[in-house]
Amino acid sequence: MPRTDDEPGKVEDLAPGVAFADADRDAVYRAIATRRDVRGEFLPDPICGDTLARILAAAHQAPSVGLSQPWDFVLIRKREIRSRIAAIFAEANAEAAQRFPAERQAQYRTLKLEGIVSAPLNICVTSDPARGGPVILGATHMADTDLFSTVCAIQNLWLAARAEGIGVGWVSILHEDRVKAVLGIPERLRLVGYLCVGHVRGFFDRPELEKRGWRTRDNVGAHVHEDGWNAQRHMPAPKD
Amino acid sequence: MPRTDDEPGKVEDLAPGVAFADADRDAVYRAIATRRDVRGEFLPDPICGDTLARILAAAHQAPSVGLSQPWDFVLIRKREIRSRIAAIFAEANAEAAQRFPAERQAQYRTLKLEGIVSAPLNICVTSDPARGGPVILGATHMADTDLFSTVCAIQNLWLAARAEGIGVGWVSILHEDRVKAVLGIPERLRLVGYLCVGHVRGFFDRPELEKRGWRTRDNVGAHVHEDGWNAQRHMPAPKD
Repeated sequence: MPRTDDEPGKVEDLAPGVAFADADRDAVYRAIATRRDVRGEFLPDPICGDTLARILAAAHQAPSVGLSQPWDFVLIRKREIRSRIAAIFAEANAEAAQRFPAERQAQYRTLKLEGIVSAPLNICVTSDPARGGPVILGATHMADTDLFSTVCAIQNLWLAARAEGIGVGWVSILHEDRVKAVLGIPERLRLVGYLCVGHVRGFFDRPELEKRGWRTRDNVGAHVHEDGWNAQRHMPAPKD
Repeated sequence: MPRTDDEPGKVEDLAPGVAFADADRDAVYRAIATRRDVRGEFLPDPICGDTLARILAAAHQAPSVGLSQPWDFVLIRKREIRSRIAAIFAEANAEAAQRFPAERQAQYRTLKLEGIVSAPLNICVTSDPARGGPVILGATHMADTDLFSTVCAIQNLWLAARAEGIGVGWVSILHEDRVKAVLGIPERLRLVGYLCVGHVRGFFDRPELEKRGWRTRDNVGAHVHEDGWNAQRHMPAPKD
């Protein structure tokens, strides 16, 4: 790959544009491939403060629109608060089950979909669309760019946690306004992700929903198009 | 950290819940810390097919709500198409500049904010909210969960690319409907990210907007709250 160590006026600012050594590259791919959405495997052991600090720093190194850094991380350790969130989940999840066709409801109800109380730490990740000021570079034309930045931070957090042997589960079956009320999160912020975080008994070798027969993974090729949208790549959506 | 290799009924499914070896963990953190939003450093060299396949496979390993896999990746190599997208950017960017207060407009116009034509590959990443069927596990109560899944795929792609020495720049100063029309993307899909992808002369050691004095990074501690929202963490938003 070309290098430009002899190019004037740029060298002092630039790290070489080269690939990581194979072992390091493979480690990145391993974090990506073995990251799991953890629900039922949490252990109660607390997370070491240094480890948590590294994971949060990784989240904060995410890209953000106009460098607006719209994310916040509300750490929830108190069991009483986590129990209140778990009650919000339980109610929402009962509602959710009823939305599926009758033949899937029984299977839905067997799935464990959260570790809110069993994980020792929850992290509520929010996004503040006003963080960057009234006009934000890069946020002038497309909607939701602050949310996208915040999700990048969550994915950084998730991968860093995997490398630390820490499991993360993202819970989205929640009444957002009620969670915000419990945590005192200001009205203008969006709740983007509610994460359960902790050491784990282990990581499944495949996505749990696939293992349990809920849905299968596509081949990546079905999602790749060349020089414009190529129709007929996907199977029709299942009628569920 | 506890292991459960002797726990009945689970072991066959679970990889050990342990941290990566230090060197591997550090490689993950290095990808996260040195990933940059690349605009001006692209080289014209094409990306090797195997490398691109690895990067796309990493994107496709992202978590998705209900395993819905809502993302698609439209690869754009033809220069004529990239030139049309660049024209859409140019118009949007001229509009964007005018939204800033007078004293920032001149600085805004000096910033290079895209590599649409200089990068040999663009990837338009879309999200299909109907991909998982009429009712999607995990998408019953919070909005935009498909978008969040798709952003996780983009961040996976970005980090994998960094480990491969490939630069990625996310362009959001675009008229979404016009880009979708050029690429023939169906109406129901959201355009989430428009990425410029290619080998680079190098990677900046800090976010470019910080280097160029547009905005500074906060300390991560300003974004962390304990057991509920703790006010007064952030400086007031700048008046720009």
